[in-house]
Amino acid sequence: MERLECLFCRKKHPLDVFNPFCPQCGEPMVLSYSPRKRTIAHERVLSLEKFQNFLPLASVNRRLSLGEGNTPLVPLHRVREKYGLPAVLAKNETSNPTHSFKDRGTAVAVQKAVAMGIKKIGTVSTGNMAASTAAYGAKAGIKTLVFFKEDSPPAKILSTRVYGAQIIQERGDYGKLFWKSFEIGRKRGIYFMNSVDPLRLEGYKVTAYEIFLDLERRAPRFVFVPVSSGGHLVGLLRGFLDLREEGLIAELPVFVGVQASGCSPLSRAFSTGMQRFKRIGKARTIAHAISNPDPPAGNLVLKLVRETSGMVVDVTDREILDAQRDLARLEGIFADPASATTLAALIKMSGNPDRKTRLRGDIVLIITGSGLKALNSGKG
Amino acid sequence: MERLECLFCRKKHPLDVFNPFCPQCGEPMVLSYSPRKRTIAHERVLSLEKFQNFLPLASVNRRLSLGEGNTPLVPLHRVREKYGLPAVLAKNETSNPTHSFKDRGTAVAVQKAVAMGIKKIGTVSTGNMAASTAAYGAKAGIKTLVFFKEDSPPAKILSTRVYGAQIIQERGDYGKLFWKSFEIGRKRGIYFMNSVDPLRLEGYKVTAYEIFLDLERRAPRFVFVPVSSGGHLVGLLRGFLDLREEGLIAELPVFVGVQASGCSPLSRAFSTGMQRFKRIGKARTIAHAISNPDPPAGNLVLKLVRETSGMVVDVTDREILDAQRDLARLEGIFADPASATTLAALIKMSGNPDRKTRLRGDIVLIITGSGLKALNSGKG
Repeated sequence: MERLECLFCRKKHPLDVFNPFCPQCGEPMVLSYSPRKRTIAHERVLSLEKFQNFLPLASVNRRLSLGEGNTPLVPLHRVREKYGLPAVLAKNETSNPTHSFKDRGTAVAVQKAVAMGIKKIGTVSTGNMAASTAAYGAKAGIKTLVFFKEDSPPAKILSTRVYGAQIIQERGDYGKLFWKSFEIGRKRGIYFMNSVDPLRLEGYKVTAYEIFLDLERRAPRFVFVPVSSGGHLVGLLRGFLDLREEGLIAELPVFVGVQASGCSPLSRAFSTGMQRFKRIGKARTIAHAISNPDPPAGNLVLKLVRETSGMVVDVTDREILDAQRDLARLEGIFADPASATTLAALIKMSGNPDRKTRLRGDIVLIITGSGLKALNSGKG
Repeated sequence: MERLECLFCRKKHPLDVFNPFCPQCGEPMVLSYSPRKRTIAHERVLSLEKFQNFLPLASVNRRLSLGEGNTPLVPLHRVREKYGLPAVLAKNETSNPTHSFKDRGTAVAVQKAVAMGIKKIGTVSTGNMAASTAAYGAKAGIKTLVFFKEDSPPAKILSTRVYGAQIIQERGDYGKLFWKSFEIGRKRGIYFMNSVDPLRLEGYKVTAYEIFLDLERRAPRFVFVPVSSGGHLVGLLRGFLDLREEGLIAELPVFVGVQASGCSPLSRAFSTGMQRFKRIGKARTIAHAISNPDPPAGNLVLKLVRETSGMVVDVTDREILDAQRDLARLEGIFADPASATTLAALIKMSGNPDRKTRLRGDIVLIITGSGLKALNSGKG
């Protein structure tokens, strides 16, 4: 039976999608499994079926899938040569159905929602998660509610509304809307599958399994991933932890969580040795997809990254734009600024003589979202 | 050895990417192979490697791939139920690296260009093909030139320029630019991999092979595909012809080429029994990606569709918008208007008592491009 576990106090609780935070610690909880032998169903095409044994799904309802996952892992030869790097590869998550990594998490959360008989889902988002949740809600034929900030760009709202989702534009910052949504969800029976939802995180594990297969059953040495709420990094890391637990890999990759310098509460906490981060005032960065000043899984990221010898770093908007340009002009990948932070951090690290010695291939950069959705923030 | 063949006069010519039209007939030529046994390399991940035996590639240069292909084939249950249809599936080509089917063709053309030592490539495009060619040109590190119409929307130009391609904005219609580009290409050694380029068409065959594998080694009964220049339909059909030639399928699918009523030279010719189409004056449709009034492979489409018991039909902008809405709201797929023509045509056909009796599953709709790239033309 699946339960939720707080990784801080190690207490377990029944799975309740309306209450995914630890009543003691206030931290987001993760799925906890009874020990079991897990195998990969190589013959399956759907990613959820291929890795069903690793997921909290008793069965996979094909009617609910948009064909998420199976994204390409692309070697970046020209970037490597320009900067004298070890082998670097991009896991291009923009090949997902709504063009971002969010689809992997939404796919698992919607499978479970429908299996549990939940009739309404929702999310709080400024972009990618909104479109993803609305698309999967449409596919499932369940009512979907999306909270946007009042000042969200019309194109982002339009690309969510198109799926028939109900849009509510609210004043106030993303952080406040996030907490408010759970209250509303409990009152009205709406499952808010927000950024750090434990089932959403299960979906992100699949990316780790795919990278393992893409690399012919090896783990990469490094994984660079943009960090906003923290959910994506936690999910990816848990995926590699699963692989180690099953004896499929011997060592975990080193995780490098990357933030934008203009919104870097976790990088600040990490570099000053703090266990817990301090929320920052106002985000000031072009990387809108990772501009969360109060990341709900922030403390969990700090804890897990420390326990696995990883790190959290940050890069400036200038460095982000240069990396975005390199990805497009040298590698033909038009990433959004949030995704370009990964390459920016790698380039920065490779220029630091102390850290460069540590860098070894294979290095995987997670490209989380498409530049197409952020045409106004890129430099073109 | 590969040669080019005119399917009208059956004459063969040496492969010359600068002169892909028949000197006798003026029609676009296609690749011609010596008889050989072709097999599928199931263990390969890259689509070009999996189907290399079916392609004019002596080897696949992995450095040039962006991970094109391997797109999902998604059953459309809710659309099927709403309209009482047989089994319908969407082949979602927006999961390609630059979010359209064009990447499959560009990938093959760029492989060949680099193998042949060509240093400059180009294309004439109003959208998807521009971004695709620019992205693959960047990945290959070769100079890329893209002709845009003078009045192209800035967002489309930006999403091509980002890859570092040289953009030239020209007055005049798409048709004239198309022919002019070949003259320039011959003079300056630029390989213009335009819409009906014979190597580009080879890439589109791979979609047919994937559908065959997705359906567990069967051909669908029907394939609905948007028709603009005609290259995509010709490539897809040739893919199924290959499969029949190899004895892997017994019967071809019925191809339904779909145009917008506001730009339907081929549908008009087909319905009036003409062998050759007449170019129309001005295109008037929201389906910009298929608004070519003078399709270069138009006569070839008419010929092949007739020979294989297929058809060319057209749908109004109203029908397109309704279908786009159904795809998004019922199936979670945000297709561009050009792609939505496929569902519009299927719905229309299912409402016609004469034709309905012919409709049997599996019916595959090819979703060629993303609604994200056409936010202004959809209705939201």
